[in-house]
Amino acid sequence: MVASRGTGEGEWFTIRWNSDRVELLDQRELPNEERYLSLTEVEEVAEAIEELAIRGAPAIGCAAAMGVALGAWRSDARDLDAMVGELESRVIPRLERTRPTAINLFWALDRMRGTLAKLAQAPGASTESLRAGLLAEAETILEDDKAICREIGQAGIDLIPDGAQVLTHCNAGALATGGYGTALGVVRAAVEAGRSIRVLADETRPLLQGARLTAWELSRDDIPVEVCTDNMAGYLMQQGEVDLVVVGADRIAANGDVANKIGTYGLAVLANAHSIPFYVAAPLSTIDLKIADGSAIPIEIRGRDEIARIGGRTLLPEQVGVRQPAFDVTPAALVTALVTEKGLVQPPSQQAIAALFRPDS
Amino acid sequence: MVASRGTGEGEWFTIRWNSDRVELLDQRELPNEERYLSLTEVEEVAEAIEELAIRGAPAIGCAAAMGVALGAWRSDARDLDAMVGELESRVIPRLERTRPTAINLFWALDRMRGTLAKLAQAPGASTESLRAGLLAEAETILEDDKAICREIGQAGIDLIPDGAQVLTHCNAGALATGGYGTALGVVRAAVEAGRSIRVLADETRPLLQGARLTAWELSRDDIPVEVCTDNMAGYLMQQGEVDLVVVGADRIAANGDVANKIGTYGLAVLANAHSIPFYVAAPLSTIDLKIADGSAIPIEIRGRDEIARIGGRTLLPEQVGVRQPAFDVTPAALVTALVTEKGLVQPPSQQAIAALFRPDS
Repeated sequence: MVASRGTGEGEWFTIRWNSDRVELLDQRELPNEERYLSLTEVEEVAEAIEELAIRGAPAIGCAAAMGVALGAWRSDARDLDAMVGELESRVIPRLERTRPTAINLFWALDRMRGTLAKLAQAPGASTESLRAGLLAEAETILEDDKAICREIGQAGIDLIPDGAQVLTHCNAGALATGGYGTALGVVRAAVEAGRSIRVLADETRPLLQGARLTAWELSRDDIPVEVCTDNMAGYLMQQGEVDLVVVGADRIAANGDVANKIGTYGLAVLANAHSIPFYVAAPLSTIDLKIADGSAIPIEIRGRDEIARIGGRTLLPEQVGVRQPAFDVTPAALVTALVTEKGLVQPPSQQAIAALFRPDS
Repeated sequence: MVASRGTGEGEWFTIRWNSDRVELLDQRELPNEERYLSLTEVEEVAEAIEELAIRGAPAIGCAAAMGVALGAWRSDARDLDAMVGELESRVIPRLERTRPTAINLFWALDRMRGTLAKLAQAPGASTESLRAGLLAEAETILEDDKAICREIGQAGIDLIPDGAQVLTHCNAGALATGGYGTALGVVRAAVEAGRSIRVLADETRPLLQGARLTAWELSRDDIPVEVCTDNMAGYLMQQGEVDLVVVGADRIAANGDVANKIGTYGLAVLANAHSIPFYVAAPLSTIDLKIADGSAIPIEIRGRDEIARIGGRTLLPEQVGVRQPAFDVTPAALVTALVTEKGLVQPPSQQAIAALFRPDS
């Protein structure tokens, strides 16, 4: 793994394939440093996901797909069967074990698994055709994700009136996707349509994705943004300073219950109490039809140090324990609308969500 | 100002008078270091309040009273009138300018001003009798505060059943008072009565009074405590892991609206949505009968760096602004009961609060 530095100006990217490797912006270092990691091993991709160098449900899916392609490129397998075996028994399972909550990870790996099977059965299949085909599929997933984010943006554009103050939580932006963003995609689409918008970014403890990432990418794109601590949302709503809330999602159940970054549920309750619309922007790949409702969504529990330390600084007494759920579940009843690449689902319901997946829809 | 270190074991104190100076535990350094400041100048006391070396509404009142006594002890005034003039025109106004929200500051300074007037008019009054009398009054305020906290604890004891999981926000403990605490005084009283209790402490961004102070003082006293980020409260309530919420207050309006640390209002909304009791524990000195409702309580806005930096670490991009209200106001309707040294006010109302101040009550 080699790292290179960005300039702090001009173009930047979340993740891409370059020649024979995966390059990604190390989100752990933002906003202090724009450092790109250059990953040549599947294990490095897996660790980048586990350690949150890349995060955000759609971006995790893109990274996992690239990881499968990288597995093929790096494989020493001398024949097709050996390569298929290695990818199916080692590479894909390793990537599946990285994080449990975001469904896009499993969606992307399932898609790569399907592509692998198809490529292996094609006439004239070879290790070379596997490499090329898996890379093409990973790049398609990434490009599709960017295009879908723009469609989500267009679908949500009229939810954001001119002059709106928009509260968001965590980072559901370009950094959380192939590019452009889901929740922040809706913001970007409204800004591109000429609307004047202010974003309030919850800092999003413990890992500060709002303060570090949302504030960084919006200010890089000259979209007005201010940061508040998570516990200020109620006050700001009470003062009439929030017109709507828009967040992303890590997994959406068949009934519309939404797993997203810890704190999302609290925000939804507060928005409801203040009659403020609460929107969830996500691609269809975030919807898990196999899960009937949110109670069955696995919630990742992360380590104590993420709360107990920042940098080298200890924030609580050594002997004191923490609670550390990384996600929570917002019941569909608190979600005003889902914003997807196939349009709004308003209000979310099992029936309306199922309709998104009908071939003719 | 000199500093000395505690041992990390055994007795500790929040603030005290020692010989000719004010000593206080520097709360900015907790939990990493138990450092006591030894203050010999009024300006040092004022800065200790402004910079949160000491904080918490009742403790601020005690510190301000000690500051007035210190003003008399350090005064070079050669006669009574000069000393009275110095205290009234310089010392008390300086201390009044330290922080705007906690009413206990003004309550304590008004009380010291009244004592000063009485002492100055007493037969045989001298600069020496002023020094002795003001110190005695400051020490009475401190001792009364500790006694009142124990009364608050007794008043609230039956709100906390055996086995309860108690969520609290910020620090309304021994560190926020002369000793024992208000919200944590209720917890301590229940523990002393033999009840098994778990405390969940919101870390309380930006200054982490929950993680740094509540966790420190409870673990020092062997009361089980875990820390969660502020945005986890909704999740924990949803999971049935919170039986009640108890917090302190910085100012309570005549109708029962409560100003307290930012995030308290959001917690109250969440508690209400989950039918979880929400208690506010505070002495009568926190009640401001001159303010009809919470809308007139001044809310302190603090500096960007408290959100933007921890230690030397920068948490958000340089050019991004923050919102930084230090307090919010919880409407009386969301407060299940006030817990005072005169018993419970349940539910809070203008009438019930006024009754606390009747001479015969």
